[in-house]
Amino acid sequence: MAPSIDLNSDVGEGFALWSLGDDAAMLAITSSANIACGFHAGDPRGMRATLEIAARHGVTLGAHVAYRDLAGFGRRDLDVSADDLFAETIYQIGALRALASSVGTSVDYVKPHGALYNRIVHDERQASAVVRAMVELDPTLVLLGPPGAVVLDLAEEAGLTTATEAFADRAYTPDGRLVSRREPGAVLHDPTLIADRMLTLVQTGRLTAVDGTELQLSPDSICVHGDTDGAVAVARAVREKLETAGVAVKPFATR
Amino acid sequence: MAPSIDLNSDVGEGFALWSLGDDAAMLAITSSANIACGFHAGDPRGMRATLEIAARHGVTLGAHVAYRDLAGFGRRDLDVSADDLFAETIYQIGALRALASSVGTSVDYVKPHGALYNRIVHDERQASAVVRAMVELDPTLVLLGPPGAVVLDLAEEAGLTTATEAFADRAYTPDGRLVSRREPGAVLHDPTLIADRMLTLVQTGRLTAVDGTELQLSPDSICVHGDTDGAVAVARAVREKLETAGVAVKPFATR
Amino acid sequence: MAPSIDLNSDVGEGFALWSLGDDAAMLAITSSANIACGFHAGDPRGMRATLEIAARHGVTLGAHVAYRDLAGFGRRDLDVSADDLFAETIYQIGALRALASSVGTSVDYVKPHGALYNRIVHDERQASAVVRAMVELDPTLVLLGPPGAVVLDLAEEAGLTTATEAFADRAYTPDGRLVSRREPGAVLHDPTLIADRMLTLVQTGRLTAVDGTELQLSPDSICVHGDTDGAVAVARAVREKLETAGVAVKPFATR
Amino acid sequence: MAPSIDLNSDVGEGFALWSLGDDAAMLAITSSANIACGFHAGDPRGMRATLEIAARHGVTLGAHVAYRDLAGFGRRDLDVSADDLFAETIYQIGALRALASSVGTSVDYVKPHGALYNRIVHDERQASAVVRAMVELDPTLVLLGPPGAVVLDLAEEAGLTTATEAFADRAYTPDGRLVSRREPGAVLHDPTLIADRMLTLVQTGRLTAVDGTELQLSPDSICVHGDTDGAVAVARAVREKLETAGVAVKPFATR
Repeated sequence: MAPSIDLNSDVGEGFALWSLGDDAAMLAITSSANIACGFHAGDPRGMRATLEIAARHGVTLGAHVAYRDLAGFGRRDLDVSADDLFAETIYQIGALRALASSVGTSVDYVKPHGALYNRIVHDERQASAVVRAMVELDPTLVLLGPPGAVVLDLAEEAGLTTATEAFADRAYTPDGRLVSRREPGAVLHDPTLIADRMLTLVQTGRLTAVDGTELQLSPDSICVHGDTDGAVAVARAVREKLETAGVAVKPFATR
Repeated sequence: MAPSIDLNSDVGEGFALWSLGDDAAMLAITSSANIACGFHAGDPRGMRATLEIAARHGVTLGAHVAYRDLAGFGRRDLDVSADDLFAETIYQIGALRALASSVGTSVDYVKPHGALYNRIVHDERQASAVVRAMVELDPTLVLLGPPGAVVLDLAEEAGLTTATEAFADRAYTPDGRLVSRREPGAVLHDPTLIADRMLTLVQTGRLTAVDGTELQLSPDSICVHGDTDGAVAVARAVREKLETAGVAVKPFATR
Repeated sequence: MAPSIDLNSDVGEGFALWSLGDDAAMLAITSSANIACGFHAGDPRGMRATLEIAARHGVTLGAHVAYRDLAGFGRRDLDVSADDLFAETIYQIGALRALASSVGTSVDYVKPHGALYNRIVHDERQASAVVRAMVELDPTLVLLGPPGAVVLDLAEEAGLTTATEAFADRAYTPDGRLVSRREPGAVLHDPTLIADRMLTLVQTGRLTAVDGTELQLSPDSICVHGDTDGAVAVARAVREKLETAGVAVKPFATR
Repeated sequence: MAPSIDLNSDVGEGFALWSLGDDAAMLAITSSANIACGFHAGDPRGMRATLEIAARHGVTLGAHVAYRDLAGFGRRDLDVSADDLFAETIYQIGALRALASSVGTSVDYVKPHGALYNRIVHDERQASAVVRAMVELDPTLVLLGPPGAVVLDLAEEAGLTTATEAFADRAYTPDGRLVSRREPGAVLHDPTLIADRMLTLVQTGRLTAVDGTELQLSPDSICVHGDTDGAVAVARAVREKLETAGVAVKPFATR
């Protein structure tokens, strides 16, 4: 069987007049798209427009649920209660699903955004709220997150399907975590280098950490970014390298 | 066949710490409840809590969709574009439906709120956006509005089921419209008088306007309010008067 | 010289249609009022109305600056950047001062609200942002906070005048901190008991902690609440007990 | 005396991560800058950063007050009450002034934004609220608006100084109003043509309307835009043409 991998990216992260990144370019490169749901970015009209473009590209759709923090783009840690987070997760997924259904498509997975994504790697209370929301709304939704996250463990215990991802343009620590953005070298920029790393990862499961350690990973998806021209070029290079080597780019979540 | 009528009320109109009106009391009186969807009032946790109480009372649920104007409680006319309003209507209904499904219930109708309610009585552009949202999301949703509204005509043309309502505590002009709140006597307060008016309306289809004219109306529902102690007493009086006279109080929307 | 103490309370914490607590009652009881600035509660019209009532009562006014979190009422810990918090603090104080000047009064002090209040007890980065905002905007502003807070130390180093407060209706730990609201007995309710505690505190500097330990404190102000009928009764009892015993209730910040 | 004119532009219209237009370029071209105050765009940190750049360029600063409508960028007509608008205007100006003072500069004028700007051309109730806010906060603030607007008449009656502006890149009707953006030819794009028109306007007071009519205008300022690369080029062409012809570009409001 031919090897394959998913490429996912955050899209629909504008608001009102404001736009962010080149969604059209990314929806032509990726196989899965994480759609902002209005809490960190995204307004209903923009969400629907993004869903329409994504549907035309046949991209699988995920709900990019986030903290209710437009002013912080969902990137600030927020000590939200489990009850609020639980209901807010359902609210966001439900709103996105309704818009998706209005353009004849559907939402197949959930990828938490920003500070929420990072927090539920270790915070059981918040992780459990997200998992419970998915279970109560629709247990066929797949949860996408980083390998080793508490939220993935809880999701599996609750019977959800989970998927893991690696970040194309980020350096890793020897214990398999992302190097903090505050440290030099945290973000990679060279399209060729990054594409090579990702092909190696997909073909061998090996990813070289900052200190030379060889990590062993088997992600279901690779996250690529589209917020700068450079990022789009990286994403394109990754896709081309993979396809040239015979690796099919296809959605991790197929229902 | 015994006569029957629906009683509907706005509930779930708190936000964060703030509450408004006595929802528990109203959900014991009414047969239909219009649930705020977060745009003029209502946060996800509060919406879900309201849905749970409503479900326990067996009340039929409607989406109380509104302009995106929390600071104005959705009561200020807003010149929103048709594209925004269309997507915002789907967003709100979708979010509420997801929360409803998480408590094992469903949303059966839509009642626009406040300034939006008033505007789509005559504004075809906005009325059409609301109708189109309902059609594209779920054409079995029923639209509740005032008799004679443009939005009801458009809804029927589009194949939606519609229902009309009268306001228990409001005075009417000779041409069947509500007396403006800015005029004296616009709001009625006497529970006995109001209950008698509503019983007469249900039994005979007649409602006396401010100048003594006898209007001929056949509403599917009567809207009662719960935002003050007095309003709750009025609602209770209406229900008791109707039931004592053998009029059954039951939902207009039953699927 | 006759002993005196300030009584302060949070007011103006409504938003749009929603109100919270009995501001009119509290502004007749207290000598200082912490006015919400729109970030956790308060809209411009409501802020101005509160300022007008406060001015009529001759109450000294403080800016109740908060995290930008209306949905959480400013009670959720938020990892805001120092640059954001710095500018947001200036923004809030400036907005309130402009409204105060439009009713012929002025803002004399700053009391951070909720989660921000708690965080800058220990978080130097955020504490420093608040202090820097006050220094750059108006170094004659007084900062009100809990004894021992990092933010008060930084404020004094920066040349600001500071003031401390005790909470009338809260139990204290043996090391002088508030018992967490999650523990039983954290909030006191008996007006007579509370009034006696506060009179003893003002007259002797002693406050009995939950385990019987006698704390030694000399607050410049006592914080009373007005969010429930019971709380207003407590506040009134404290004021009456103090005045009957010859303790003058007067503002801590007088410029 | 050498002829002179002011050039003004909207700046600081980003929010959170989102940016809009090339503020740095425009602040090097204009003599006056309308700074967003957080209601249609602008967050406190961004407002302060814009103020700092503007101060370095020696540009005169205005408060770009707007409807409270972030989701609509202040471009949607909103039926706000006079009391709300009055207090919101003070709030916005006060917040901006405090940030300006923290960077050692000041706010000298007010230019309403978007739908508010258009509405107070004719709506006396809203116009009066804006005027009253300026009078009560600081009657030395100058009001900038379009010639013939009701709000300018009310401002002058109230003792405020007023200034008028023409739009460089907009076509005019024979009765001196802007051609609606919905009509073809409403927006001009040719830098040379526009620069010539503006020079003629400044030197002769004549501006050619769409039908060839010669309008007679004597604006105190010319509004240029910076939201697209083309718009910046237009603004630059206007400034160069004026200066080459010996027209000084300098602020209309000097205190």
